[in-house]
Amino acid sequence: MSKGTTTRQRIIENAAPLFNQLGFAGCSMQDILEATGLQKGGLYRHFSGKEELAAEAFRYALSRAMTSRMPAADPSLNAVEHLRKLIEQFVEAPSAIPGGCPLLNTAVDADDGNSVLRDLARNGLNEWRARIAQIVSRGLRRKEIRAGARPQALANIIIATLEGALMISRLEESKAALYDARSFLEDFVSRLASPPPPR
Amino acid sequence: MSKGTTTRQRIIENAAPLFNQLGFAGCSMQDILEATGLQKGGLYRHFSGKEELAAEAFRYALSRAMTSRMPAADPSLNAVEHLRKLIEQFVEAPSAIPGGCPLLNTAVDADDGNSVLRDLARNGLNEWRARIAQIVSRGLRRKEIRAGARPQALANIIIATLEGALMISRLEESKAALYDARSFLEDFVSRLASPPPPR
Repeated sequence: MSKGTTTRQRIIENAAPLFNQLGFAGCSMQDILEATGLQKGGLYRHFSGKEELAAEAFRYALSRAMTSRMPAADPSLNAVEHLRKLIEQFVEAPSAIPGGCPLLNTAVDADDGNSVLRDLARNGLNEWRARIAQIVSRGLRRKEIRAGARPQALANIIIATLEGALMISRLEESKAALYDARSFLEDFVSRLASPPPPR
Repeated sequence: MSKGTTTRQRIIENAAPLFNQLGFAGCSMQDILEATGLQKGGLYRHFSGKEELAAEAFRYALSRAMTSRMPAADPSLNAVEHLRKLIEQFVEAPSAIPGGCPLLNTAVDADDGNSVLRDLARNGLNEWRARIAQIVSRGLRRKEIRAGARPQALANIIIATLEGALMISRLEESKAALYDARSFLEDFVSRLASPPPPR
């Protein structure tokens, strides 16, 4: 990487936790200057302004979060086991960036505001949902998951429950809600198994 | 109400949707002045500053949201039916204030920031959870809900799933995720019924 590319990447990596913790409005370019030790000119050589930097910081934060959360693709894994692993991984490592889940934060921050960030959050949500839905679809094809399960709806439920539980856990500074979500979602995905386990 | 009390209440009611949509950092006292048509002196006669006003606006927004969401206490209602009604009501009327759920917004906004707002959000969450847990506990006492159900954990799951689905729905400007959450939670609470329904 050239020195310019390295500096640009360093700025993004420094900005990501700030935007993630403070929100778009709450994080100032001054905060970024202080975190990076750069002068204003140095910062604006790499980014047209706060919007471009926030967008890059969000892309970076989301990709870090997705990598730490999504179990590696493993076609030999039973779909139900794959979903369990995904739930477990989210509960153990809800975010790789200080400030919690960048998707949740940016969705809530941008739903009434910044349209660039909102579109990026929508894309992030779509990608995450598609990856979960794909696991379910594969499980349906292989008859590991019982017929009638709806991949998109199941993905919505898993994402909603995990993100909602993360919100509670962060507010309470306790993992209790995440553990409740885990035991509940594990039961939920177990009941998707084909044939259903006896009750 | 005296004229002062009326003005104070009018400021709070005008400020609530602004803080709920823009967040604490994103909403300026200038925004409030424009929304209320007051002069700076008029505003500061009623509130010591932005923090006090944001706190009052959140209290107001949360009480409006809770009133519109929580079905009236009705001891004749079966606990499972009561939970279903609560889920239905949230999905139909997720928030009475523009900008979505004040609890979700403030929790995400304040988890790394403003401690007054964070404490108020914690209290709001505790109250909501206690009200749901109370329905479950009553159902356990009356044997409408099967033994072993954990009131606090069930309340966490219902709140997490609804709030997470609301986050998705607002981001996508579509009720799909809320409807997915509803059908899933309705199934979930039905299976709490004592005796369990045949599968």
